[in-house]
Amino acid sequence: MLEKRVKRIFNNISKKPDVILIKNAAMPVIDDNFFYVTGLTHGIFEGSYAVLFPDGQVELIVPQLEEETAKKTGTKIIVYKDHSELNKILKNSVSSYEKIGLNFKGISLRDFLKIKNLLSNFDFFDVSDSIEKTRLIKDVIELNYIREACKIADIVADKIPQIVSDGIHEYELAAEINYLMQKNGADKTAFETISSFGKNTAEPHYTHGDIKLKKGDFVLCDFGACFSKYNSDITRTFIFGKASDMQKEMYKVVLEAQRIGFNAIKSGVKASIVHDVVNSYIQGTKFKGRFIHSTGHSLGISVHDSNARFSSNSDILLEENMVFTVEPGIYIPGLGGVRIEDDVLVKSKGAEALTKSSRDFIEI
Amino acid sequence: MLEKRVKRIFNNISKKPDVILIKNAAMPVIDDNFFYVTGLTHGIFEGSYAVLFPDGQVELIVPQLEEETAKKTGTKIIVYKDHSELNKILKNSVSSYEKIGLNFKGISLRDFLKIKNLLSNFDFFDVSDSIEKTRLIKDVIELNYIREACKIADIVADKIPQIVSDGIHEYELAAEINYLMQKNGADKTAFETISSFGKNTAEPHYTHGDIKLKKGDFVLCDFGACFSKYNSDITRTFIFGKASDMQKEMYKVVLEAQRIGFNAIKSGVKASIVHDVVNSYIQGTKFKGRFIHSTGHSLGISVHDSNARFSSNSDILLEENMVFTVEPGIYIPGLGGVRIEDDVLVKSKGAEALTKSSRDFIEI
Repeated sequence: MLEKRVKRIFNNISKKPDVILIKNAAMPVIDDNFFYVTGLTHGIFEGSYAVLFPDGQVELIVPQLEEETAKKTGTKIIVYKDHSELNKILKNSVSSYEKIGLNFKGISLRDFLKIKNLLSNFDFFDVSDSIEKTRLIKDVIELNYIREACKIADIVADKIPQIVSDGIHEYELAAEINYLMQKNGADKTAFETISSFGKNTAEPHYTHGDIKLKKGDFVLCDFGACFSKYNSDITRTFIFGKASDMQKEMYKVVLEAQRIGFNAIKSGVKASIVHDVVNSYIQGTKFKGRFIHSTGHSLGISVHDSNARFSSNSDILLEENMVFTVEPGIYIPGLGGVRIEDDVLVKSKGAEALTKSSRDFIEI
Repeated sequence: MLEKRVKRIFNNISKKPDVILIKNAAMPVIDDNFFYVTGLTHGIFEGSYAVLFPDGQVELIVPQLEEETAKKTGTKIIVYKDHSELNKILKNSVSSYEKIGLNFKGISLRDFLKIKNLLSNFDFFDVSDSIEKTRLIKDVIELNYIREACKIADIVADKIPQIVSDGIHEYELAAEINYLMQKNGADKTAFETISSFGKNTAEPHYTHGDIKLKKGDFVLCDFGACFSKYNSDITRTFIFGKASDMQKEMYKVVLEAQRIGFNAIKSGVKASIVHDVVNSYIQGTKFKGRFIHSTGHSLGISVHDSNARFSSNSDILLEENMVFTVEPGIYIPGLGGVRIEDDVLVKSKGAEALTKSSRDFIEI
């Protein structure tokens, strides 16, 4: 399976390099392709390299500290003690080649200059587009991990109405959601959980603060589980207490927008179309201009995977085994926002929902 | 305070640029200096830029989605709708200058090539070393956030013996630790919490799995809180049940090694010396060769801040208001490991412990 991934990366490149070098630097600048090509599901692997060959083989170069964990993959491992040893190993690994592919999107300029200086006789090619293209289509192992991450998010989503109570703080609800995800098998949260109440729900990127919940508030929870490096991403919006007519209408429109989005998805369709039909629908309601982000994004090892979105300017054509979020929203500053987000698998004849927890309108 | 940070960055550069451009791209390649120079304590700010001027002023260029959150800083904000508008704004912002400083360590090669293409008449300078040097010394606002992050970790550390019980899984203990941190005010965890039992404690980078705790096991917990973007990082090791003589001795040696490390720290001392005295001490015990990592690292917005460590090859000279972890450990494959980690503030006459929870030898 890993061999296939590497071969697909090479196949997706027009100007082919002899070898591809993936450098995983150090937080906060990391290249998660290191995990994609090695299949390693745990660990950090700072300062580690993966050398990819056209026949699908992978060679790992890791610091001593990572040796034990690296052994969990079946591939060849070379361990280095210090930088001078690393430099020798790197030179040796690529010495019989001329053209080296690099992930220009995942390597810092500083690290590139170091590598260029070390390997001064080589030509470097940007293979980042090919890697993104390859990662868009998930294989069976990846889908299994994503399904597990989705299952965990679903379990938690269905429990939120029981956790929410009068006066709970935003940060407390976030803590409860994260706790439930980990107790149900998540390695960690996919991203910083959004748990916003009332007016704050109108800010799509607000995370959580020390606001207390009160009657009539929207409760918006956007969260996901990370399982073996793969992520889910889900949003549920509830009303605490009795909903106003406006709140009901906002919810109804967003739910219908999501349904329209789902129905537009199948292989062969342009990603931009999915956004356009969702956006057109909302534009035709009283909430015109209140949908202020894209309809969704590809999901995988990265939460925003492969830089692919359901947006007007996307040039992606949907294919089987792509995984996307579908997450329309309506945001009214001063009043609040509604977003409903689920994860779907693109199939030949439609979309399979990977998250299945209730999307019903719920007054808690 | 923010003005001072920016001025210090310029002062620390020998070959001075007219202006510095910080680009915060998208996860997992982000530049947390965006938060350092803006003082923004929440949000993601993907696709956002900060333009720094020698007089300490900062100008923000952010996508529409981030406009509301960006307003929380007092600086000038320019909002862009799409990439062509962004390009115009970028050109305009730097048009009256010639030399542009970039954080070569925080920008991807791909993003650099785009910027170089857009601003083709400009010279680019690497200012990453200067930024790291500046960030090593914390100001009052930073220290307040770090102290809060340390306080949260301390509260949780002291509660661990009450949470641990026979048969608890590693991942469950990690979930409890994370939950307690968030309930006590952490925005999120500083990093993926390590909660390892028994033999697994011998792997410094092992995180957690589904191993159940049993009598005689080491319990090693390495965790930290993130508060307003600043992190703490602490490790406690316990024995579940009655300790063996070997376990007692390992603990005693690590605790003494940490004390030796603490005592070596004060401004004016080489960072390498701190590691050397700790390492020499352990080398002189029966645990020779069992301390396999550096003695500590700088701590701040990044958990491994400014790429500075207590290690033999460090060329850092300690200065007042630097913050470091002190974390000696002993690891015996097949048996287990002990690590004790605390966070300290460098002062003129010594080290102030920022984490104060019990480091006593505890049999739970």
